[in-house]
Amino acid sequence: MAVPPVIEWRDGAVRILDQRRLPDAIEVLHCTQVPQVMEAIRTLAIRGAPALGVAGAYGVALGAHSYDAETDGRFADHLNRVVEDIAGTRPTAVNLGWAARIVRAAAEPHADDPGAGARAVLERAHELAVDNDRRHLELAAHGASLLAPGAQVLHHCNTGPLATGAGFGSALGVIQAAHSQGKISVWVNETRPLLQGARLTTWELDQWGIPYTLITDSMAGHFMQRGSVDAVVVGADRIAANGDVANKIGTYTMAQLARAHGLPFIVAAPISTIDFETATGDAIPIEERGAGEVRGHGAARWAPGDAPVANPAFDVTPNELVSAIVTERGIARAPYTTTLAAWREPVEAMA
Amino acid sequence: MAVPPVIEWRDGAVRILDQRRLPDAIEVLHCTQVPQVMEAIRTLAIRGAPALGVAGAYGVALGAHSYDAETDGRFADHLNRVVEDIAGTRPTAVNLGWAARIVRAAAEPHADDPGAGARAVLERAHELAVDNDRRHLELAAHGASLLAPGAQVLHHCNTGPLATGAGFGSALGVIQAAHSQGKISVWVNETRPLLQGARLTTWELDQWGIPYTLITDSMAGHFMQRGSVDAVVVGADRIAANGDVANKIGTYTMAQLARAHGLPFIVAAPISTIDFETATGDAIPIEERGAGEVRGHGAARWAPGDAPVANPAFDVTPNELVSAIVTERGIARAPYTTTLAAWREPVEAMA
Repeated sequence: MAVPPVIEWRDGAVRILDQRRLPDAIEVLHCTQVPQVMEAIRTLAIRGAPALGVAGAYGVALGAHSYDAETDGRFADHLNRVVEDIAGTRPTAVNLGWAARIVRAAAEPHADDPGAGARAVLERAHELAVDNDRRHLELAAHGASLLAPGAQVLHHCNTGPLATGAGFGSALGVIQAAHSQGKISVWVNETRPLLQGARLTTWELDQWGIPYTLITDSMAGHFMQRGSVDAVVVGADRIAANGDVANKIGTYTMAQLARAHGLPFIVAAPISTIDFETATGDAIPIEERGAGEVRGHGAARWAPGDAPVANPAFDVTPNELVSAIVTERGIARAPYTTTLAAWREPVEAMA
Repeated sequence: MAVPPVIEWRDGAVRILDQRRLPDAIEVLHCTQVPQVMEAIRTLAIRGAPALGVAGAYGVALGAHSYDAETDGRFADHLNRVVEDIAGTRPTAVNLGWAARIVRAAAEPHADDPGAGARAVLERAHELAVDNDRRHLELAAHGASLLAPGAQVLHHCNTGPLATGAGFGSALGVIQAAHSQGKISVWVNETRPLLQGARLTTWELDQWGIPYTLITDSMAGHFMQRGSVDAVVVGADRIAANGDVANKIGTYTMAQLARAHGLPFIVAAPISTIDFETATGDAIPIEERGAGEVRGHGAARWAPGDAPVANPAFDVTPNELVSAIVTERGIARAPYTTTLAAWREPVEAMA
């Protein structure tokens, strides 16, 4: 089965593989207006911090191309509005606003020539997408060294190409690279409420031929207790300067379980995920999503229709529970405030 | 809405409220043959260790009443087969076989008079059901003393009357009794894969007017980290002589999280749940259920149709993570081998 790209620019439009329909249907959203991209982001047709970065970049390129001097005011003001609109669609992943601002900067020399500005923004977005791919392949190679042949690895949420738009993904890229060096197997947390593990990670591992076992999130501790898990590898939506990690809800529980069983807890994410402006995880905003996601799934509903619900989409794992943070630059260990800071320069230079 | 009894004997049949349909529909299964009761148990139309005890008792009564000397051989042999059939339907809960064997014993003086034997078995089953009710009310009163007014209590699975067939339930009975003494609130784990929390616990708490918030199991750690949980209260399917607790999958993870956050982890279960013949949790058989329960829920399916799955229905929490075990006799603390043994006599006397 030929799978379309997670996201691509084609013929003046942003095309997004609709992940809400996977694994049952392969459908592509054809976005010709910025609000369509924002809606795709908000409803998780595209998700995963690095993939959101690419979506943010192409979204701004779309905004630059759709500029109309008659109605949109100054070009620079228009672009600023587009960047803020896109950056605000989801609050936790830092990559979204980061990428949107990077590509906006490419337009700055062309304030009086919107056509040239739009071309420069698109060019920068393409560069960022290609760069994203290279960085994830490097990240995977670094991380594979942390997993022994035959390892049984627990994974939460989805961090494959669907989440990164690049390479073999972040945490799943590490798993893929390790598997290519010696067979490993994966415990796939289904990852309630949105079931990214059950729907997307299984689908990606099937394509790669990596053996896995799907479990509910509540089973992870049981299999650790039985000695059937050797390491936990997850991605990240935002990493604070001190190494606190915001990631999909349930990640913190896996980190506590790893600690209780003496297992390594490995975070794999590109440097663009590190938010050096945020000192600790306490300052990371946690997105609260709709109650329907917890009362059921999709069209299915099993709780009382008016059941009071909490639905934080992310949690924060404190740095003391993190054994290693893997990026395209290598493997960082505690103290993260120091080790992550050593990687700061290239990020700033990039922006 | 008038809710039928969880289980009752009426007009020579066992009537079982079909919990698979809750909360959407109130339907009652009318079982006139033992295999119908076994099917109801196997498919979780009735579940929860104490309720299974009542089901086992009435199931044997049904078997005694349906005895046919022409085809069933000796009355005592027939009853033995019924007891073993029923006890084998689900392996983890100890109450099922326990209750079935207790009521069988009532027939022993009537080996040559099946009619009198059947009446004696039914009489004993009624006594056991009434006794079950009384014991759960006592248990709840003891446990309430462990929860302060205003406490935020985390609960896993379902342990209300639907699970116990009696009183206000075991762990939920403790919560109900505590609420009647000072308002408390409940974090309801949805409890994948079968969603007993989302479907049944919400429904019971709604009926009692106890405030709750439904969450996915993966969110419990997050709310403990935020300081929003004061205690964890769960039931048990089987407690080993040393205080190791087999309970719904995910319970062990909650116990580890409680330990990590310095929270009391309280187990509430009637003494019939204690298996004095099983020294430690290692010896408790863990039921493995079908893959479809993990690939989706009910008619909904979200994982690939052939996704490899593990589905242990229970896990074992080691006694060192258990702060207290509440029964109808009071509150036991470590060392459980000693404190639980003090309650052994009445159980043996009962059997």
